[in-house]
Amino acid sequence: MRVSPAVGGVRMTLAIRPATLADVPAIVALMADDHNGATREDPRLPLDPAYETAFHQVDTDPHQALAVAERDGRVVGTLQVTLIPGLAFKGALRGQIESVRIASDLRGQGLGRQFIDWAVEHCRTAGCRFVQLTSQANRPDAHRFYERLGWEQSHLGFKLHFEDNH
Amino acid sequence: MRVSPAVGGVRMTLAIRPATLADVPAIVALMADDHNGATREDPRLPLDPAYETAFHQVDTDPHQALAVAERDGRVVGTLQVTLIPGLAFKGALRGQIESVRIASDLRGQGLGRQFIDWAVEHCRTAGCRFVQLTSQANRPDAHRFYERLGWEQSHLGFKLHFEDNH
Repeated sequence: MRVSPAVGGVRMTLAIRPATLADVPAIVALMADDHNGATREDPRLPLDPAYETAFHQVDTDPHQALAVAERDGRVVGTLQVTLIPGLAFKGALRGQIESVRIASDLRGQGLGRQFIDWAVEHCRTAGCRFVQLTSQANRPDAHRFYERLGWEQSHLGFKLHFEDNH
Repeated sequence: MRVSPAVGGVRMTLAIRPATLADVPAIVALMADDHNGATREDPRLPLDPAYETAFHQVDTDPHQALAVAERDGRVVGTLQVTLIPGLAFKGALRGQIESVRIASDLRGQGLGRQFIDWAVEHCRTAGCRFVQLTSQANRPDAHRFYERLGWEQSHLGFKLHFEDNH
């Protein structure tokens, strides 16, 4: 899919496609290029082999879609969509969007909106009844962004980390 | 797994096991027995066949575990665990808990805690680095419950419903 947002009078062509193994270093760099991700990712090359292992787990799971957004041959964004079947909502398939990142030098130019629109459309096409995501409580800009796109902040998100499961 | 919480001096044996197709009516009844679920589920028999279709989708997906908790032969609880691979957190597998329900006449007796403990242990054994869940914003009792169990309310949860995708 190609979308061309007009930004400040300049048309930017954003190409959104499934990630390949060759994209993994760029994806990890995007994840680390973030005030929450900086401490928990390691983008140094050669990459920790755990990233490649995880890529194969995602890539072989038909319910996962790891996507990258490219502009002029540069990977400038990433996100992951998960399709989750379940009995709730009369057996609704739900979509879930995780790990959304846009390169820090390109934020505020509408790329995130195009990318989220793509992910939502991916879920709709797959037959989802709704899409869900969580956003860290310390990202008020992200919360306003999702609300502008029509998302409802209806839930609180909780996490429990296993310190010993590495 | 069998756990025996002591409640008011009476030992209650809770048996937690994978759900079968025969459990689906009881699961849907639990989902409907809830102020948020009452309007969106239909527990009338014969069940809407969408529930059986969804059960098979869950049952054939190795990343899903739909569980029920039984006491004295009665299904008194349900929840679903999803394992989600991904690149974030150095390639961490994450667990996700959805659709947690305990029979309304048995709440406040420690069954939910035993059931969540089981789900967390399921995720730890599967190799997850952390577990996540969302809880509707209008459930303050549930939020205190998760915080007492050591969960951190770190995120806001957003949803976008497709009105036309039924």
